[in-house]
Amino acid sequence: MVIVMKPNATEKQISDVSNLLLSLDLKPHISRGEERVVIGVIGDKKKLKEKNVELMEGVEKVIPIVESYKLASRTFNPVSTIVDVDGVSVGGKNIVIMAGPCAVESKEQLFESAEAVKKFGAKFLRGGAYKPRTSPYSFQGLEKEGLEMLYEAKKYTGLKIVTEVMDIHSIEIVSKYADVLQIGARNMQNFSLLKEVGRSNRPVLLKRGIAATIEEWLNAAEYILSEGNKNVILCERGIRTFEQYTRNTLDLSAVPVIKKLSHLPIIVDPSHGTGKSFLVSPMAKAAIAAGADGLIIEVHPDPKNALSDGAQSLTPKEFEVLTKEISKVANAVGRDFI
Amino acid sequence: MVIVMKPNATEKQISDVSNLLLSLDLKPHISRGEERVVIGVIGDKKKLKEKNVELMEGVEKVIPIVESYKLASRTFNPVSTIVDVDGVSVGGKNIVIMAGPCAVESKEQLFESAEAVKKFGAKFLRGGAYKPRTSPYSFQGLEKEGLEMLYEAKKYTGLKIVTEVMDIHSIEIVSKYADVLQIGARNMQNFSLLKEVGRSNRPVLLKRGIAATIEEWLNAAEYILSEGNKNVILCERGIRTFEQYTRNTLDLSAVPVIKKLSHLPIIVDPSHGTGKSFLVSPMAKAAIAAGADGLIIEVHPDPKNALSDGAQSLTPKEFEVLTKEISKVANAVGRDFI
Amino acid sequence: MVIVMKPNATEKQISDVSNLLLSLDLKPHISRGEERVVIGVIGDKKKLKEKNVELMEGVEKVIPIVESYKLASRTFNPVSTIVDVDGVSVGGKNIVIMAGPCAVESKEQLFESAEAVKKFGAKFLRGGAYKPRTSPYSFQGLEKEGLEMLYEAKKYTGLKIVTEVMDIHSIEIVSKYADVLQIGARNMQNFSLLKEVGRSNRPVLLKRGIAATIEEWLNAAEYILSEGNKNVILCERGIRTFEQYTRNTLDLSAVPVIKKLSHLPIIVDPSHGTGKSFLVSPMAKAAIAAGADGLIIEVHPDPKNALSDGAQSLTPKEFEVLTKEISKVANAVGRDFI
Amino acid sequence: MVIVMKPNATEKQISDVSNLLLSLDLKPHISRGEERVVIGVIGDKKKLKEKNVELMEGVEKVIPIVESYKLASRTFNPVSTIVDVDGVSVGGKNIVIMAGPCAVESKEQLFESAEAVKKFGAKFLRGGAYKPRTSPYSFQGLEKEGLEMLYEAKKYTGLKIVTEVMDIHSIEIVSKYADVLQIGARNMQNFSLLKEVGRSNRPVLLKRGIAATIEEWLNAAEYILSEGNKNVILCERGIRTFEQYTRNTLDLSAVPVIKKLSHLPIIVDPSHGTGKSFLVSPMAKAAIAAGADGLIIEVHPDPKNALSDGAQSLTPKEFEVLTKEISKVANAVGRDFI
Repeated sequence: MVIVMKPNATEKQISDVSNLLLSLDLKPHISRGEERVVIGVIGDKKKLKEKNVELMEGVEKVIPIVESYKLASRTFNPVSTIVDVDGVSVGGKNIVIMAGPCAVESKEQLFESAEAVKKFGAKFLRGGAYKPRTSPYSFQGLEKEGLEMLYEAKKYTGLKIVTEVMDIHSIEIVSKYADVLQIGARNMQNFSLLKEVGRSNRPVLLKRGIAATIEEWLNAAEYILSEGNKNVILCERGIRTFEQYTRNTLDLSAVPVIKKLSHLPIIVDPSHGTGKSFLVSPMAKAAIAAGADGLIIEVHPDPKNALSDGAQSLTPKEFEVLTKEISKVANAVGRDFI
Repeated sequence: MVIVMKPNATEKQISDVSNLLLSLDLKPHISRGEERVVIGVIGDKKKLKEKNVELMEGVEKVIPIVESYKLASRTFNPVSTIVDVDGVSVGGKNIVIMAGPCAVESKEQLFESAEAVKKFGAKFLRGGAYKPRTSPYSFQGLEKEGLEMLYEAKKYTGLKIVTEVMDIHSIEIVSKYADVLQIGARNMQNFSLLKEVGRSNRPVLLKRGIAATIEEWLNAAEYILSEGNKNVILCERGIRTFEQYTRNTLDLSAVPVIKKLSHLPIIVDPSHGTGKSFLVSPMAKAAIAAGADGLIIEVHPDPKNALSDGAQSLTPKEFEVLTKEISKVANAVGRDFI
Repeated sequence: MVIVMKPNATEKQISDVSNLLLSLDLKPHISRGEERVVIGVIGDKKKLKEKNVELMEGVEKVIPIVESYKLASRTFNPVSTIVDVDGVSVGGKNIVIMAGPCAVESKEQLFESAEAVKKFGAKFLRGGAYKPRTSPYSFQGLEKEGLEMLYEAKKYTGLKIVTEVMDIHSIEIVSKYADVLQIGARNMQNFSLLKEVGRSNRPVLLKRGIAATIEEWLNAAEYILSEGNKNVILCERGIRTFEQYTRNTLDLSAVPVIKKLSHLPIIVDPSHGTGKSFLVSPMAKAAIAAGADGLIIEVHPDPKNALSDGAQSLTPKEFEVLTKEISKVANAVGRDFI
Repeated sequence: MVIVMKPNATEKQISDVSNLLLSLDLKPHISRGEERVVIGVIGDKKKLKEKNVELMEGVEKVIPIVESYKLASRTFNPVSTIVDVDGVSVGGKNIVIMAGPCAVESKEQLFESAEAVKKFGAKFLRGGAYKPRTSPYSFQGLEKEGLEMLYEAKKYTGLKIVTEVMDIHSIEIVSKYADVLQIGARNMQNFSLLKEVGRSNRPVLLKRGIAATIEEWLNAAEYILSEGNKNVILCERGIRTFEQYTRNTLDLSAVPVIKKLSHLPIIVDPSHGTGKSFLVSPMAKAAIAAGADGLIIEVHPDPKNALSDGAQSLTPKEFEVLTKEISKVANAVGRDFI
């Protein structure tokens, strides 16, 4: 941490800051520049958490030097994490695809989706049983019934199940049926929920919040990791910007940034990230080229009649074409698919 | 709802859309322009919820005409709502101020704050017992103990209590102690929580999400209203933009926009909205000039030693000066304070 | 400037950085923290401009401490600048209003506007003769003919003229007719134009770019100031965010921020800042309450038939009402209007 | 165009709108819905340009149906444009790479860069002779001398030259030396400049503005096209968002969106788009995977001593590695490189 004093800070103000640091067993390191005095802080900065140094007389600003997350940081954990989901690795050389409908609507719809996505190489079936919807009047999901259908689809196809958990009440029931607990973008800073899934033994898919910085996202992962659950998979799904043609702006640079800052695996959701089915394929390929460990893609047997997000869903046929292309791009960047 | 056909849409495609509408007892109204055919939809659009018309052959886009919220809309409820909080009105001619520390830290800190803010005209005491913090290593609040202190401060000063409820588990206990349940920005689309406070009989202070559009915000209010709780107060607290000098960009235009679109009262939080104490006073005055029904302001007896958000807290002395200025601005726009 | 070394930086890397600094007559000041070594740089940082220290081995990042603008900075120029426009002060105790149509359309339209805005207290007539329009097919302004009409309106009413200069070619001709050269938001980083108006002797109204940070805006002002023209008036006119209800998001916090960082006067444009006439009055009042030195407002005798920006223009009658309200708010914050 | 009336619009107001349309030889098409009356407008909407229908009594809003650009639109020009730059095609099956230093600094630096980028497959040499810099105190380019060096490098290597033209004054001189005129992001809406390069016979590389929507960008291209210059190449170079880890947020979804909306070729600038050299390679590969027609990349023989943008420049060695990887990704998506 570096404390920048105002241009006209007095010696008294400088020594007040120094003395505060010394009183907390921190070592001040004073640099006297031409325009400003800058004080470096040496020692455990947590001691300063409850002191608002930026409010002391003569202080202009305080600049943090070190990231606030530790367990999620590659600095302290240089080896890339591979999350094992009941035998399927996420984060290794193989690209994984999670696919399926936005929402579970019926057994027929789900099984048809599951068979198709399995056939073309997906290892995970996605599908929402609890749906967070902007309007209270939109379809809210089949809830427990939906979870049971997912479980049946798993038994039938062998696909692993990833589904959203929307609140702390439903963690228990979702964990009974699902292999991976998904935390949606709107809940990325629902800290009660993060702590609770941190105490679960299920891998967690943590989507980036719609306006979350990469640092906030890694801090959200830190909430889960610090409760003991080490199996966190990050998912870039688009951020909110001024551009309105796409539903969100898919920030693919987050992929190599995360790879640098963190050891956690990262996948990409080109369906929510763009909101339009014609953009899913190019952005899925781009995600793999950028280094993503996998994809999560909406596939629906009949997008026109989907109860949720039909506009961004692929048909099984389109998904088949996509997986063939993904395979080529994966090979081009030294990865495998299937 | 208006359906815009592609420039080269065929007659078959146009009649397929028409026939779908007719099959749902909706009336299509076809306009043949020079470049596009446009189909107006007459009747109850909810019938179209589960049909993704934008995926039909020949359809270019679908444009909604009517807002998706009803109970929160001024169109359907032209009279401004005044929320009565145990005898104090929010939304009437009087400006209300809610003030107090960001977090409850100790009985001394809280009582000192409470006495000061009451003395200078606040009607509500704010203070967090449960704190949503970006990092798991930051102070997380005194929880139940904090609630008890708030309740004591209420008994002592007569101030109404507003405090955050972070998850569905804690609604019951917070409701025992608080007069107003605050939903924080990070939880604005925590739909499980919204529904649950919608079933409570406590007034709700609904903060705008950090990247929420005004329409999403009113839909979040709709979740609460549609469960039966009519006492919703909106709170603008800044949105996330590219500008980094301020913690958030306080969107004061949201005040007159909400007044036009909705009948609900709206207050402004210049403390979180700017993140810097020197900006609180000018932005508080601006909020009142823009038509806000009140303010929520962080006041701490010793901001330098605040456990949370000290940089944006006013001292009691600064708060006193502010209230005098607010009173003048309120009068200038035909409102009263105190 | 502070240079942060990587956690695993070697002694060799640290001394390489030190030696580079010493070779440039800069003094390195090394702080050895628990996780990082941080090197303060003492001396004239301009010497480092052409060295990309962040690319040296072992360097994690470089953090600037001091703002890059000098002439625009209040640190170096503590006294607030009052710009004198041919006898009218901008930046003093009096609020000034610049008003008139978006575009000059005809002599009748301009004179009618001019008489109205003068009658209700405006000191400046605004009106575009050269119009920057998103589409090449929109009305582009009357150009020289428009300038002549503005000049006539000035002779007739005594109002000062503020009008946009869109490129370096037209500076000369615009300067013949106008009292203040306006640089539009789209040209805020048109550096050729900034330098050229910096060599002019006309006061400049510098609008904030649609996505410009406050620091970039002050650097744009620095371009003008550093060429010798000290008469710069800043104008906040809304920034681009995800919110689409308003045309832009008017960032009123920029007003007190500019007052802190710079000595230059600042006015606010609630017409472009919101894009909707019903929002002009509340946001104009809010701007004055926040400390703005003035307003620039679109007024048109017949907004329904305006060739540009009719949706955000006030009628003369609405402008009259607004000025009365502005006068009250100005008094409430210790300023005068008229 | 669709005109939406207010819920309580009177018959008089509806007929006033109809009559206005009829008076302009437009045909109104009235749909009477359950909550709103909607009026479709049939005929040439340009006639309505100077009527602000949204200000008429009873009108709630006006929704445009058709894009405002024509010459840039794929709807009206379905065949993809291939821009021929003196024998090199941009927009065909072959990926093109433009590479070189951010700024021309010296003959040695430029020639060393040029030889390297040519060796590894670039067809264009980039390099700024006129540099737009945020601060007036940063290096502003070698100007004419820089242009001459670029021209010599062209003669020596056969590479085509792409360099920025910052204002209308310098179009003539830049056109003497350069093959492609680059319009920088800050000038994307410098309409005077756009019109002027539209009258030139040189191909234009039009960078997306830092906060420009795709629609505004295509309208900027329309300015150039409508003056007669059909050789426009678009360049995505990152947009401004709240995320601060990267210099900009590279919006790769713009690539397939542009391919759908327009017939113009599009390349990507991963150097400015990310601001960090370690992100250039993954984002370059992602751009090609997403369908880009080429790349523009900063390469400098000695990034540590670059006068501009060193932090995002590749060394020749890094560029060599990148081109090999690009070649593989290009093949994977059915394109060729070299």
